[in-house]
Amino acid sequence: MILRPRPHWVHLLFVRRGSLVPRILSQQLFIFALSCAVVLLHGQLFHWKVTLTATPFSLMGVAFAIFLGFRINASYDRYWEARKLWGAVLVEARNLARQALNLATPRDTQRAFVLGLVGFATAMRNQLRARPRDTDLAGLLPMDLVERVRTARFAPALILLWLGEWLRERRTAGELDAIAAQQMEQSLNDLSGALGGCERIANTPLPFTYSVILHRSAYFYCMLLPFGLVDSIGIMTPLIVCFVSYTFFALEALSDEIDDPFGTMPNDLALDALVAGIDASLREMLGEPLPPAPVPDANYLLT
Amino acid sequence: MILRPRPHWVHLLFVRRGSLVPRILSQQLFIFALSCAVVLLHGQLFHWKVTLTATPFSLMGVAFAIFLGFRINASYDRYWEARKLWGAVLVEARNLARQALNLATPRDTQRAFVLGLVGFATAMRNQLRARPRDTDLAGLLPMDLVERVRTARFAPALILLWLGEWLRERRTAGELDAIAAQQMEQSLNDLSGALGGCERIANTPLPFTYSVILHRSAYFYCMLLPFGLVDSIGIMTPLIVCFVSYTFFALEALSDEIDDPFGTMPNDLALDALVAGIDASLREMLGEPLPPAPVPDANYLLT
Amino acid sequence: MILRPRPHWVHLLFVRRGSLVPRILSQQLFIFALSCAVVLLHGQLFHWKVTLTATPFSLMGVAFAIFLGFRINASYDRYWEARKLWGAVLVEARNLARQALNLATPRDTQRAFVLGLVGFATAMRNQLRARPRDTDLAGLLPMDLVERVRTARFAPALILLWLGEWLRERRTAGELDAIAAQQMEQSLNDLSGALGGCERIANTPLPFTYSVILHRSAYFYCMLLPFGLVDSIGIMTPLIVCFVSYTFFALEALSDEIDDPFGTMPNDLALDALVAGIDASLREMLGEPLPPAPVPDANYLLT
Amino acid sequence: MILRPRPHWVHLLFVRRGSLVPRILSQQLFIFALSCAVVLLHGQLFHWKVTLTATPFSLMGVAFAIFLGFRINASYDRYWEARKLWGAVLVEARNLARQALNLATPRDTQRAFVLGLVGFATAMRNQLRARPRDTDLAGLLPMDLVERVRTARFAPALILLWLGEWLRERRTAGELDAIAAQQMEQSLNDLSGALGGCERIANTPLPFTYSVILHRSAYFYCMLLPFGLVDSIGIMTPLIVCFVSYTFFALEALSDEIDDPFGTMPNDLALDALVAGIDASLREMLGEPLPPAPVPDANYLLT
Amino acid sequence: MILRPRPHWVHLLFVRRGSLVPRILSQQLFIFALSCAVVLLHGQLFHWKVTLTATPFSLMGVAFAIFLGFRINASYDRYWEARKLWGAVLVEARNLARQALNLATPRDTQRAFVLGLVGFATAMRNQLRARPRDTDLAGLLPMDLVERVRTARFAPALILLWLGEWLRERRTAGELDAIAAQQMEQSLNDLSGALGGCERIANTPLPFTYSVILHRSAYFYCMLLPFGLVDSIGIMTPLIVCFVSYTFFALEALSDEIDDPFGTMPNDLALDALVAGIDASLREMLGEPLPPAPVPDANYLLT
Repeated sequence: MILRPRPHWVHLLFVRRGSLVPRILSQQLFIFALSCAVVLLHGQLFHWKVTLTATPFSLMGVAFAIFLGFRINASYDRYWEARKLWGAVLVEARNLARQALNLATPRDTQRAFVLGLVGFATAMRNQLRARPRDTDLAGLLPMDLVERVRTARFAPALILLWLGEWLRERRTAGELDAIAAQQMEQSLNDLSGALGGCERIANTPLPFTYSVILHRSAYFYCMLLPFGLVDSIGIMTPLIVCFVSYTFFALEALSDEIDDPFGTMPNDLALDALVAGIDASLREMLGEPLPPAPVPDANYLLT
Repeated sequence: MILRPRPHWVHLLFVRRGSLVPRILSQQLFIFALSCAVVLLHGQLFHWKVTLTATPFSLMGVAFAIFLGFRINASYDRYWEARKLWGAVLVEARNLARQALNLATPRDTQRAFVLGLVGFATAMRNQLRARPRDTDLAGLLPMDLVERVRTARFAPALILLWLGEWLRERRTAGELDAIAAQQMEQSLNDLSGALGGCERIANTPLPFTYSVILHRSAYFYCMLLPFGLVDSIGIMTPLIVCFVSYTFFALEALSDEIDDPFGTMPNDLALDALVAGIDASLREMLGEPLPPAPVPDANYLLT
Repeated sequence: MILRPRPHWVHLLFVRRGSLVPRILSQQLFIFALSCAVVLLHGQLFHWKVTLTATPFSLMGVAFAIFLGFRINASYDRYWEARKLWGAVLVEARNLARQALNLATPRDTQRAFVLGLVGFATAMRNQLRARPRDTDLAGLLPMDLVERVRTARFAPALILLWLGEWLRERRTAGELDAIAAQQMEQSLNDLSGALGGCERIANTPLPFTYSVILHRSAYFYCMLLPFGLVDSIGIMTPLIVCFVSYTFFALEALSDEIDDPFGTMPNDLALDALVAGIDASLREMLGEPLPPAPVPDANYLLT
Repeated sequence: MILRPRPHWVHLLFVRRGSLVPRILSQQLFIFALSCAVVLLHGQLFHWKVTLTATPFSLMGVAFAIFLGFRINASYDRYWEARKLWGAVLVEARNLARQALNLATPRDTQRAFVLGLVGFATAMRNQLRARPRDTDLAGLLPMDLVERVRTARFAPALILLWLGEWLRERRTAGELDAIAAQQMEQSLNDLSGALGGCERIANTPLPFTYSVILHRSAYFYCMLLPFGLVDSIGIMTPLIVCFVSYTFFALEALSDEIDDPFGTMPNDLALDALVAGIDASLREMLGEPLPPAPVPDANYLLT
Repeated sequence: MILRPRPHWVHLLFVRRGSLVPRILSQQLFIFALSCAVVLLHGQLFHWKVTLTATPFSLMGVAFAIFLGFRINASYDRYWEARKLWGAVLVEARNLARQALNLATPRDTQRAFVLGLVGFATAMRNQLRARPRDTDLAGLLPMDLVERVRTARFAPALILLWLGEWLRERRTAGELDAIAAQQMEQSLNDLSGALGGCERIANTPLPFTYSVILHRSAYFYCMLLPFGLVDSIGIMTPLIVCFVSYTFFALEALSDEIDDPFGTMPNDLALDALVAGIDASLREMLGEPLPPAPVPDANYLLT
C-alpha cells in the first residue's frame, strides 16, 4: 500500500512512484512510436490513405469508458471487501482477547490463547500470499501445532480448530459457562467467515473474458486513434494519443493490480502491517511492551 | 471458470480461449459481410441511397452503452452473490465440523456428520446443475438417505433435516448442551439460507424483457452502423463496425453467460472445484489424507 | 415472470412476447406518424421552418440516458429485493419446519404448524396481490383463524401471532426448551421482517415526481427528434426515431412494470409459483406426496 | 408522499401536481426571458457578439449529467434507507407485541406495553419532524412519562428506557424467562438502531459543498446555453433551453427534497401514515377495533 | 461539517463558504492566466500554431467525468460508512446504558459505566483526530485508566477491556445473569466493530495511484483545453475553461476532503458534536442536566 501525505498539486503532476508509468512503459512507447509514424506518413499506410475520422472514436470512447468504469468499480469493491475482512479479523481477535482476559483462567493460559489469535492472522497472511505455511509462527503457537500447520493445505482452519479446543478445555475446567462459550464460538465463526471471504476473493478472479474484451477494446482503440486524429490535429496527435492511452492503460493496470488485493504490488493491501497491528493491539491488551509500528519505506510503500 | 496467469499484453490481444469469439462468430460474420456490401455499393440499397450520418449513432450509442453497462453490472452481481453463497457453505461447513469435532462424541459418529456436510454441498451442486440427485453421494451419506434423495425434488433440504436429526440425537445422548445445539442449528440455518439464495438465483432470471430490448438495440445498432459510417470513413467501415460489434456482442454474450452462474459455460462458477475444496478442508480437519486439489485443464478451464 | 430458454439471436430480434411492443404501441404509432409528417413537410410547420439540428439532442440524450439508467437500476433493486424477501420466507419456513419436525411433538401437531407456515406465505401473497384475504387458506389453517383472517387488514401478522401461540403451547407442554424456543421465535421474527419488507415495497413507490420528470423528458425528446434529424438523414428519420423511441419507451415501461414487483404483469414476480414451491418443499419434508411443479403457460408466463 | 395511480401517458405529460413546476418557476422564467433576449439580440451583448458554439456544452453537459446522476442516487439512497428504518420499526413493534401477547401477563399490562410501542413510533416522528415532543402521546403512554418526554431532547430514547423497565418488571414477576427477555431486549436494541439511523439521516446532510458545486454548474450551464445554441437553432432556442433547464432544475430540486426525507414536502415520507399503520397493526393484534386507514388527500398527498 | 439552511437559489450561486474556491484558487488563477495568454496569442506557441480542435476533448471529457464520478462515489461511501459507524456508537452506547440502568446495581456504579461509554467515544475521537489520547477524559473514566490510556497506542480498545471488567464484576456480584451479560458483551463487540471500522477507514486511503491518474487527467485536460477551444469560441475561452476547471478541480478537492472523513476540514464529520450528542443522550437517560447542544459557528461550521 502506498501511504504518503498528499503532495502539492504541481508536484502530483510529476510524481513517479505510484504512477504506474514503469509498468506500462512498453505499451506507451509503442503507441507513441505509432503515433509519430502516422504523423510523418500523413496517415498513409503503404501509399494507401487510412480514411478514419474522429467520429467512430467518440462512439466507441464513451462506451469503452463506461465498461472500464464498471471494471474499476468491481476491482475496487474486491479490494475494499478484502480490507473489511481483515478489519473483521482485528475486531474479532480483540473481542476474543477481551473475553479471554476476563475469565478466571491462569494468565499463562490466557496468553497462549491471545497469541494463538495472532497466529491465526499470521497463518491467514501466509496462505493468501503463498508463503511457507509456518512463516513467523514460532513463538505464537505450540510447537506441535506449528508442525501440523507446516504441511497443511488450509492451515488457518486448523488453528481455529485448536482455538476451539482451548475453549472446550476452559469449559471442562469450569472457567467458562455455556453462554459465554457460545459467544466466543460465535467470534471464532466470524474469524472463519473472514478467512472464507478472503479465500473466495483470492480464488475467484473477475471473469477472465471480461478482462480480455476490455483489454482488446482499449488497445485497438488507442492503436487506431492516431489515424482518426491526424487529419484534424496534425502534429499534436502523439501528445493527445499518449494522454488518452496513459489514462486507459494505467486504469486498466491499476484494476488488474487491486483485483487480487493480497499480492505484493504497490497498491495491494499491506498484510504485513495489518498482522503487525493485530499483534500490537493484542499485546497492549496483555500489558506487554509493543514492537514499533510499521512505517512506510523510502518509496512510501507499506507491505 | 477460466483460471490462468495474466498473459503478456501483446498475447492478450490474440488469445482465443475465453474471448467468446467462437460463440458470436456467426453474428460477427453477418455484420462483416453486411459492412463490406455497404462499402461496395456506396451505401445504396436497390439504387436508393440510404441517407444516414454518424449523428444518430452517437445519440444512441451512449444510451445503449449505459443500459448495457447496467446489464453487465446486474449479471456480475448475480455471479458474485452466487460465489458468496458458496463461500458461506464452506464457512458454515467448517464451523459445524469444528464444533462437532470438539464434542465428546465417538469419532465415527463425528465423521458421519462431517461427511454429511460434504454430502449437503454435493447435493446442492447436483440440484443447481440438474445432475441426477444422487451423483457422488455414495460414501458420504447413509444408504437410506441416498435412496430418499434420489427421487427428491429439494434434496439438499432433506439432508439438512437429517443433519438436524443428528444434532437431536447428540442432544438426547447428553453430548451436546442446549446452547451449543442452538448455535449449531444456527449454522444449519445459514446453510439453508445459502441453499435458498442459490435456488433464487437459479430460478429467477433477469427480466426477460430487459434482455430483449438490449439485444434488439445492440443488433439494429450494429446493422445500421455501416450506413452511417460509409460516407465519412469509406473502406475502413468493416473494420470499425466489427470492432464496435465485437465489444457489444461479446459483452452481451458474457452477461448472458454469468447471469446463470451455475451452468457449465467457461465463465461460470467452478462448482465441482468448490465442492472438492469443501471436501478437502473438512477431511483435513478430520486428519485424513487429502485428494489432490483440482487444477485447470489444458484450456485453463476449471469446472 | 417470463421463463423461457434463450432463443437464437435471430429469433430474439423478432420475438413478440415479452417485448412490450403491445403496451407502447399507441405511443410508437404516434411518434412514427409525426416523423413521417415531418419528413413530408421537410420540417416545416405552417410554412415556418423549425430550425433544429442534432446538436441539442446529443446534449440532452446522454443526460436523459443517465437518468433513465438510474431509474432502471432503482426499479430492478426493488424487484430483486422483493425476490430476496420471498426467498427468505422459503428459507425460514424450511428452518422452522426442520426444527418443528425434530421436536418430540405428536406428528399431527407438527403437521398443523408446518401447514400454518404455508398458510402464512399464502396470506402474504393474498395481501400483496390484493386478493380476498382467505384465498386458498382452507385446509392450511384452523377454521377459526381463517375466519379471523377473512376480515383482517394485516392478515399475515395474525398468522404469525398464531404460530407464536403454537410455540408457547409446545413450551408449556415441555416439548420445547427455552433456547430452542428462542431460536424458533427468531425465525418468526425473520418471517415478520420479510413481510414488513414486502409491505414497504408495495406501499412506497419510487418518488412520483421522478417518474414525471423522466416521462416528460423521454416524450418531448422523441417528439422533437424528427425535427432535429430531418435535415441530415431525410427519409431515414422515421426509422431512426422509432428505434430511439422504442428503446426509451420500452425501458421506461419495463421500469414501471418491475417497480411494483407484486403485480400480475408479465415481468412481475411469480408469487403463485413461489407459494407452490414453499408448499412443495415443506410437504416433501413432511414425507407427503408432492403436487406437480408449476410450469410456464404457452406464453412462457409463470404467475 | 404522492400516491396516485399512474395516469395515461398523455395525461402524464401535462400533470401539474408533483411536477415541481411551481417550485422552480422563478428560475425557469428567468432562463426563458434570458433565452428570448438572446434570440432577439442575435447573441450580442452591448454590440459585442458572444462567440459561443455548442461544442463546450457537449463537453460540460455529460460531465454535469454524471455528477447530477450521482447526487440523485445518493439522495434516493437516503430516502430509501429512511423508509427501511421505519419499516424496521413496524417489524420490531410487531415482534415485541407478538411476544408480549404470548406472555402469562394480565391483559391490561400487555396492552400498556403494546401501546407504549405505538408511543415510541409517535415520539420518533415528533422528533424527526420537530413537532412538540408530546404530540399525540396522551393515551399511549403513562402520564408521568408523557411529562418527562415533553421537555426531553432525545424523547424516544427515554421511552425505550421505560419499555426496558417494563421488561424487567415482567422478569421480576416471574412471567418472563431470561432467554425470552434477552430476545425482547434485542428487539428494543433494533428499535434503538432504527432511531439512531433516522437521527443520523436527519442530522447529517449531503456535504454542502457538493450541492454548491452542482447548483452552480447547473445554473451557469443553463444561463450560457442560449448563447451557444442561438447560431445553430435560432428561434427554437428558448424552447430547447427551457426543456434542458427544466430537467436539470427539477432533478436538482427533487434531490434536495428527498435528501431530508422526514420533512413535509410532497415527495417526503408519509410519517403520519406510517405511524397510523403501526398503530392499526398493533391494535389488530390486540383484537381492538381499527381506525380507518389514512388515504391520500385530493392532491394525492399522504403526509 | 457545514450545517446551514439552504440559501435562495440566487444566493447559492455566490456563496463563498463551502465553495472550495479558496482552496483551489492558485490552480484556477493559473488556468485563467493560461487561457488569456492562449487567446492573446491566438493559440500560437513561439510562432508555432498548436493544432488542437475540440474533438479530442469530447473523447476525453466523458471518460474523465466517468472516472471522476466513480471517485466521488467511493469517497462519499467512505464518508457515509464512517458516519454510520459513529451512529452505531451512539446506538450501542444507549443500549448498554439502558440495560445497565435496569440492573439492580447501585446508582453510582451504574453512573461510572455510563460515563465510561462516553469516555470510549471520546477516546475514539482522540485517536481518529490524532489528539492527545487523554483529551477530555478526566471525569469520565477512573484516574488510573486515564493514566494507562495516556500512553496507549490503541486507547479505546483498553477502555472496552475496562468496560468488560465492569460487566464481570456485576456478574460476580450476582447482579447480572449469564444471558444478559452475553447481550451486553455483544454490544461491546459492536462498539469494538465500530472502532475497527473507523480505524480501517482512517488507515487505508483510496489507492494512491488512482488519485494520481485522476489528478493528472484533470490538470492536463484543463491545460490543453484553451488550445482546443480558442479557434471556435475565441474570447469566451477563459470563461468556459474556468467554468470547466472549477467543476473538475472542486469535485476532486471535495473527494479528497471527504476521503478521510475524520479530519477537521469543512466537509469532514463533526466528531466533536457527535461525542457531545452521545454525552447528552446518556446524561438525559441518567436524569442529569444537559449541556447545551453544539451549534454551528458563524461560518456554519460544526467541528
